[in-house]
Amino acid sequence: MPPSDEGGGTAQAVTEGEITMNCEILCVGTELLLGNTVNTNAAELSDLLSGLGINVFWHTVVGDNPGRLAEAVAIARGRADLIITTGGLGPTYDDLTKNVLAESFGRKMEYHPEEAEFLKAWFARNTSVKFTDNNMQQAYLPERCTVLHNDWGTAPGCAFEEGGVHVIMLPGPPNECIPMFRHRAVPYLKRLTGEVIFSRQIRVFGIGESAVEDMLRREMEHMANPSLATYAKFGEVMLRATAKAPTEEQAEAMCQPVVEHVCQLLGDKVYGVDVDSLEALVLSLMKERGLTFAAAESLTGGLISQRFTALPGASAVYKSGAVTYCNECKAAMLGIDLAAIEEKGAVSYETAAAMAQGVRACTGADLAVSATGLAGPDGDGVHPVGTVFVGLADGENVWVRELKLGTGRSRVRQLAANNAFDMLRRYLQGLPIVNK
Amino acid sequence: MPPSDEGGGTAQAVTEGEITMNCEILCVGTELLLGNTVNTNAAELSDLLSGLGINVFWHTVVGDNPGRLAEAVAIARGRADLIITTGGLGPTYDDLTKNVLAESFGRKMEYHPEEAEFLKAWFARNTSVKFTDNNMQQAYLPERCTVLHNDWGTAPGCAFEEGGVHVIMLPGPPNECIPMFRHRAVPYLKRLTGEVIFSRQIRVFGIGESAVEDMLRREMEHMANPSLATYAKFGEVMLRATAKAPTEEQAEAMCQPVVEHVCQLLGDKVYGVDVDSLEALVLSLMKERGLTFAAAESLTGGLISQRFTALPGASAVYKSGAVTYCNECKAAMLGIDLAAIEEKGAVSYETAAAMAQGVRACTGADLAVSATGLAGPDGDGVHPVGTVFVGLADGENVWVRELKLGTGRSRVRQLAANNAFDMLRRYLQGLPIVNK
Repeated sequence: MPPSDEGGGTAQAVTEGEITMNCEILCVGTELLLGNTVNTNAAELSDLLSGLGINVFWHTVVGDNPGRLAEAVAIARGRADLIITTGGLGPTYDDLTKNVLAESFGRKMEYHPEEAEFLKAWFARNTSVKFTDNNMQQAYLPERCTVLHNDWGTAPGCAFEEGGVHVIMLPGPPNECIPMFRHRAVPYLKRLTGEVIFSRQIRVFGIGESAVEDMLRREMEHMANPSLATYAKFGEVMLRATAKAPTEEQAEAMCQPVVEHVCQLLGDKVYGVDVDSLEALVLSLMKERGLTFAAAESLTGGLISQRFTALPGASAVYKSGAVTYCNECKAAMLGIDLAAIEEKGAVSYETAAAMAQGVRACTGADLAVSATGLAGPDGDGVHPVGTVFVGLADGENVWVRELKLGTGRSRVRQLAANNAFDMLRRYLQGLPIVNK
Repeated sequence: MPPSDEGGGTAQAVTEGEITMNCEILCVGTELLLGNTVNTNAAELSDLLSGLGINVFWHTVVGDNPGRLAEAVAIARGRADLIITTGGLGPTYDDLTKNVLAESFGRKMEYHPEEAEFLKAWFARNTSVKFTDNNMQQAYLPERCTVLHNDWGTAPGCAFEEGGVHVIMLPGPPNECIPMFRHRAVPYLKRLTGEVIFSRQIRVFGIGESAVEDMLRREMEHMANPSLATYAKFGEVMLRATAKAPTEEQAEAMCQPVVEHVCQLLGDKVYGVDVDSLEALVLSLMKERGLTFAAAESLTGGLISQRFTALPGASAVYKSGAVTYCNECKAAMLGIDLAAIEEKGAVSYETAAAMAQGVRACTGADLAVSATGLAGPDGDGVHPVGTVFVGLADGENVWVRELKLGTGRSRVRQLAANNAFDMLRRYLQGLPIVNK
């Protein structure tokens, strides 16, 4: 196996004489070739695989066509030693991935009674969906495979090895594909690689990716094992330190000084190590202290509440929220003086402050956040699109961040929500809240 | 040229003896393989190509690695008659697409003085970027090509034909790639093909994908041009009818009887043709009639409001919403009798009805929806996870759907929101709301 020779500027750990898997992600689905669906699975799986120290060298997409899928499998077998497929495991007649892969690798299909029982029970619970004979197809998998049971949908995945090539099949919908990878494929892969890959994620808010890279260029260019890489999304930067070693303890110990160095360099811009997201950190900090939370949203339109309540266990902390688009509703639901809103304007420091204080008072929550501003595409004739005020109130004080977030309705809303969660985490971590 | 042999259940039109181009999109960039960047170019180009009647049968991604790129080009040449590359045209040393493609097709590189002049002028205008010798590399292109001048960046693209295979090279950044395709590649391609493709999307809610396929199996298996295909997501089904013909008018006329047949067969399960989503349809129907909207959410935690306000122009219709997790907040914010909630339970028909009526009354909206239930992972000891009540209130009546939505926190929440929007659209379309 050749060492990774991927060009400069990559996050790939360079392996030195070590055995590394070279992976092809093979996505099956005509919807991808028609452009209806963006292939987020390929990106997310690549990210997760690189965290495991597995090189992803090819993405291939083919449609629901048995001939072209079989050809793509033949090519993949010839160059990769791990093939991960997505899509085509469902109950409809164009779901043909399992059959084509089984035939390509000379395997028959085998009935799995335990999966059939699961399917029957699933459909019995979900009485609004009709069970048809097609659905039972999902209980058939290539013989001698490891069944990857699907707790996030109905179609099981599977994994097997043939002639030195490992195959893992995952369902197509991202809300099934990604948890299936994390909870089913990762344990399978960990048993295959003789070495342990250990990585730690350092999560950063309030500084851009290129500024981070400038500060850490030396470390990123010259370190091989452990390696350090950056990833950016919606104003957040994630740094990942990855080490390979014979044991997890050794790999972890190799990562530790890198993590400490980065945390020291970036200071309080680092909001956590190995935490899932800003809101997940806020939820756990608030839970620890028995605090409760509320939100008053205008421009974010429910996004702050939605992201927070998407977390399992949020109900222990989240009290309630108000989504107040019109000024009258801001006044009526949050007990704010309508004349004051009209004087200062809905998009203002004062309104953001009053919204946070208002929702806190009327819900009895310990902490409350607010967001008002212009997500676009239309402006208000006064402020440019992207003008946003985000507020935070406790029983005594109120803080407001004034932000210029640029354009893109969805992007502006996500960035505003990120700022609300960042203000909360800084409050909870005892850091300055507004003057970052 | 082989006819398209896309399998059943796909939207690919089968051409009968007609000459159609089969395209491979070959994206070059290590950032795609690391998952840093989602491959939106492949999706957007596919969508645009299908609009031109060109079959996209393969997407391939390789990194900035000359060996693997050359192998991918050899494979693409053997199966496609149009190869569109993205990425790797820039000035840095890992931008190697042009050189590898030129070598693969046996062409030398040629200096283009007009492109060199453009580059010098561009760098003179943008003084913040330093002009280095590397930048002059961008003025070299494979010999005997059509230069695709880049008005959206610096690196020009190019197009050529060799042995019946057409090659088009586009830059990687989406804000250059897509306009380069529209304004440079499309005129080039239109000179090569003689047909247009036309498709219509029929959107369906309240019936599963396999039930739809059972009803339409004959049409889906035996129709080639126009063709009919299904796609499913979160309890919604989308059917696409696609036709190819010499003119757009002819292709549209060929689709029409298929659309009518499907609409007749699926009745009021069809919520719209060529509409973007349930919530987009609801927004446009409410806007037309000057109606306003509010939402009271418990299990969906702001998702209904967030999805609705994500639509540009929502502020004309959306008044406000309440996200009430705790019973006290349901009572205080929505004016519901706390004792009644406690008697019937937060997850009940009565609470869903009272939430919808309450939020309607306190916001003054014309129509209001509500959602309460258990998204999991934890139950309440009374109802199974997935038990959901969705309400709709106007000034006189209230309707509640009781649903069993199975497991998966995110899935249950999305399905509940879909049901709220479906109840609204059925109300607005004058259809029965609860007994689907």
